[in-house]
Amino acid sequence: MAKNRLIYLPLGGAGEIGMNCYVYGYGPANKERYIIVDLGVTFPDMDTTPGVDLIMPDTDWIQQRASRIDAIFITHAHEDHIGAVAHLWQRLQAPVYARAFTAHLARLKFDEHGLDKRNIHTIAAYPETITTGPFTVAFAPVAHSIPESSALVIDTPDGRIVHTGDFKLDENPGVGEAHDPKLWKEIAKTGVRALVCDSTNVFSPDPGRSEITVGPAIVDLVKNARGMVVATTFASNIARVKTLADAGIRAGRSVVLLGRAMRRMVSAATEVGILTDFPGTISAEDAKDVPRENLMVLATGSQGERRAATAQLSRGKYLGLSLKSGDTMLFSSKTIPGNEKSVARIVNAFSEMGVDVIDDSMGDYHVSGHANRPDLQTMHKLIDPQFLIPMHGEHRHLRTHAKLGETGGIASIIAPNGVMLDLSGNKPKIAEYVETGRTYLDGRVQIGALDGVVRDRIRMALNGHVMVTLIVENNAPLGDAWCEVMGLPETGASNAPLIDVLENDLTQFLMRADKKTLKDDDKLQEALRRVVRKVTKDEIGKKPEVSVVISRLAG
Amino acid sequence: MAKNRLIYLPLGGAGEIGMNCYVYGYGPANKERYIIVDLGVTFPDMDTTPGVDLIMPDTDWIQQRASRIDAIFITHAHEDHIGAVAHLWQRLQAPVYARAFTAHLARLKFDEHGLDKRNIHTIAAYPETITTGPFTVAFAPVAHSIPESSALVIDTPDGRIVHTGDFKLDENPGVGEAHDPKLWKEIAKTGVRALVCDSTNVFSPDPGRSEITVGPAIVDLVKNARGMVVATTFASNIARVKTLADAGIRAGRSVVLLGRAMRRMVSAATEVGILTDFPGTISAEDAKDVPRENLMVLATGSQGERRAATAQLSRGKYLGLSLKSGDTMLFSSKTIPGNEKSVARIVNAFSEMGVDVIDDSMGDYHVSGHANRPDLQTMHKLIDPQFLIPMHGEHRHLRTHAKLGETGGIASIIAPNGVMLDLSGNKPKIAEYVETGRTYLDGRVQIGALDGVVRDRIRMALNGHVMVTLIVENNAPLGDAWCEVMGLPETGASNAPLIDVLENDLTQFLMRADKKTLKDDDKLQEALRRVVRKVTKDEIGKKPEVSVVISRLAG
Repeated sequence: MAKNRLIYLPLGGAGEIGMNCYVYGYGPANKERYIIVDLGVTFPDMDTTPGVDLIMPDTDWIQQRASRIDAIFITHAHEDHIGAVAHLWQRLQAPVYARAFTAHLARLKFDEHGLDKRNIHTIAAYPETITTGPFTVAFAPVAHSIPESSALVIDTPDGRIVHTGDFKLDENPGVGEAHDPKLWKEIAKTGVRALVCDSTNVFSPDPGRSEITVGPAIVDLVKNARGMVVATTFASNIARVKTLADAGIRAGRSVVLLGRAMRRMVSAATEVGILTDFPGTISAEDAKDVPRENLMVLATGSQGERRAATAQLSRGKYLGLSLKSGDTMLFSSKTIPGNEKSVARIVNAFSEMGVDVIDDSMGDYHVSGHANRPDLQTMHKLIDPQFLIPMHGEHRHLRTHAKLGETGGIASIIAPNGVMLDLSGNKPKIAEYVETGRTYLDGRVQIGALDGVVRDRIRMALNGHVMVTLIVENNAPLGDAWCEVMGLPETGASNAPLIDVLENDLTQFLMRADKKTLKDDDKLQEALRRVVRKVTKDEIGKKPEVSVVISRLAG
Repeated sequence: MAKNRLIYLPLGGAGEIGMNCYVYGYGPANKERYIIVDLGVTFPDMDTTPGVDLIMPDTDWIQQRASRIDAIFITHAHEDHIGAVAHLWQRLQAPVYARAFTAHLARLKFDEHGLDKRNIHTIAAYPETITTGPFTVAFAPVAHSIPESSALVIDTPDGRIVHTGDFKLDENPGVGEAHDPKLWKEIAKTGVRALVCDSTNVFSPDPGRSEITVGPAIVDLVKNARGMVVATTFASNIARVKTLADAGIRAGRSVVLLGRAMRRMVSAATEVGILTDFPGTISAEDAKDVPRENLMVLATGSQGERRAATAQLSRGKYLGLSLKSGDTMLFSSKTIPGNEKSVARIVNAFSEMGVDVIDDSMGDYHVSGHANRPDLQTMHKLIDPQFLIPMHGEHRHLRTHAKLGETGGIASIIAPNGVMLDLSGNKPKIAEYVETGRTYLDGRVQIGALDGVVRDRIRMALNGHVMVTLIVENNAPLGDAWCEVMGLPETGASNAPLIDVLENDLTQFLMRADKKTLKDDDKLQEALRRVVRKVTKDEIGKKPEVSVVISRLAG
């Protein structure tokens, strides 16, 4: 009989921050039963993924084994953990388990995709467990920046795994559950084989601060503000949203929720019963009748997202509201690397309006949702695992986290996306390398990252695009070749229109072209492409993308 | 007789960090004589300027008055102050004045562009002056992160202006001139009308640190490193480059300069006589014969530039050198906002090789070249000007700097690019709004930012590009319309190739099209475009860019 093994395979999130997706398996090699932890997305950028709508893990490997997937667990409702669940579910077809708030948001996604919501199962926190195949799983509450975040306690025939999800050690998180060292001691008591642990903040040297520390500063700021106050934060950070709303109320202001996500998150948290005492709000419409110094607006778009409420306000009126000199704009958030320019653009637009922009550069109005380096060490000690497997981080985070583990005397191993670990032995060992990648949602279509579609877009963006059309009759050109140009300067070195120079040189070429070339579409296309690239290089110093269409008329 | 006025007009650098270009004028309104201070560039990005090579100020306004430009002054040799001088000089045709190191580098640029170097004049530091038109100008040495940085002391019939350029208050800058409070007191003694002042670091709350403070930490790091040490910093930061090289020598290592800019800057500083005791270096070729623990490599590319030495090393071998586990990579630099992702990509690549990457997150290995908030206050007090005009900053920097000035009792005014100030009266007042913008160097061609070329590239990158060709004979289609697609998924909702669906629907449309449409190229193009956009929207959920080429055959 084949020997059983316990495997860990990250398909996303290990080698990047975002797009979390981890597979655990137990059984004979390549016949394991599987569970998936998280199905997250990451966001595209112009540099590498222009025009793409969402980036998801490439789940090809696990899809090929879909009949052996027993369950999908979602640790919490941040998009980088839940965002792909509805996009990919059709291919995976396994029951989804989550706690109430997360399940509620997963159901909204299933609704939007026309999927059957009965596949989503709400389960309560530890000590409740769900047994599925060889795995028994509990959701152990952790503090993070969204309600009901949970670590998973995964019991297997080869021992217990603690998969932290995203967490911090906050004993006063405001809304939601506190970090509970007693709970972790209880969970660790029986021994933990592997701690699979969030690495996001491994470079932050000081202990993390509690959510409760931002309250007083926000209350002061809002109390002392003269005009309208607009505050932006992640809508899913319900504790923060409540702190901001409460600060508004305490300063005698009416609270306005601006942006779809803001309203959806507050209503989800209320429906699920997490949020019981959120103050009453007024609509943007009604806010127009309230003096601006009596308004506290909570807006989406803390990361500079172009279509979110904050960006809209920075461009002028939004739903009848607009900011002006004397108003205050508070970024109760940290700018995620890569978003600096978008955020700066908005801050500058507000600056031009004379709005006072307050951000978190002094650390007063925001705290992170992730465990810092000393907090990670605390967690290592609480769990005291046999192995540490750093996850959720770029390679530099994983490596530094593994070193931290080793320093604390815990055998640590780096497993980036696609590296399958066998956790059954005395030491984790690499079992296989699985091909992984990324799947792009492009419009409504899912494409592979290596399909060439996005590569072509990048090339057109960098080099411009020239289209050549030619009609050929009886293997002779009928008239001249025509050019259309997109994304290239109109004139170059010779000061004549680029199109004219191109068409002239193409005509010259065609007059000299031999029959062999004219007869062969591939040859002719390649020859015309070469002429275009040479002319454009000479004229403007760039080699464009070239498409050639040859129409052959029956003679 | 018309009244003379003294004007200040930023064409670049006020409303952004980078691309510095300031005009001063004196004379009757719109008949002033002018001087230009700095002709800098800024760098393109994929988000807003894909495919662009360099971004320069739009100097159209001053070009139209080129006969009245008396001189161009370059404060220092950073690209955001000197980078456009050779690109734009042909249109401005005025003598260029700079100190020796800056002039040396300007001459190299003139050489590359085939311009006459005799137009570049080296002038010595204050108290030497050059009188040109109504202006008498001196280069007053300031500390910065490149040798011979200077503030300009501009004497005009309406008083003295101090234009700081980039500066910090460093009394121990290593290579180069120290901040000299006595000098500034002397300059301020006669009274200063306007202080036009660097705003880059106005958000940094603590006093700036001296260049000399990084030396010991670097020496320790290099001494204790086991394998090869590669350090990257801006090549133009000669003081830092020397500190790094000296640290290598002290640790018994041979120094290698990797990257063209690194060698050019060290040789420029040596030729000009600023750098007298730079240690001997060996070539990358010879380095192959030296044990890795005896190598100290100074590499270009601290900002993650794809083609620079550091990025090349992160991708594998470069000039025979490569890094491996046990080696150390030091970023003696701060990542400029917008470059975070490029730098992180490189750091992660080194992490995968097992290289220890040290950056400046702890503040040990880098200091900024700009005056922090308290330093700006010190400068305000030293100069004690009638007006403060913040420059070199985004709007938020200018606004915060102006507030800082007002707090110190100095009348302060914000003048972003295109806002012309009249400085002749008791208070600075806005004289005119001048249309300004940006000029792109695209390949070898200069294009306007609003020409639509880059907009088209961005659209192709976001939406993909469909090309339709159709032959029309006697106002009837000859055969079917053909499609070529670039940057779009191959199949969509109907699971048939997108091209087939497009060509089918175009054929359907053409069969029904009326003569009026078929006769009119514009109408027909628009109609075909609409069909393509509708089909693509239905199939894949995106509306692409569409080019239509109609070839009409004589019947």
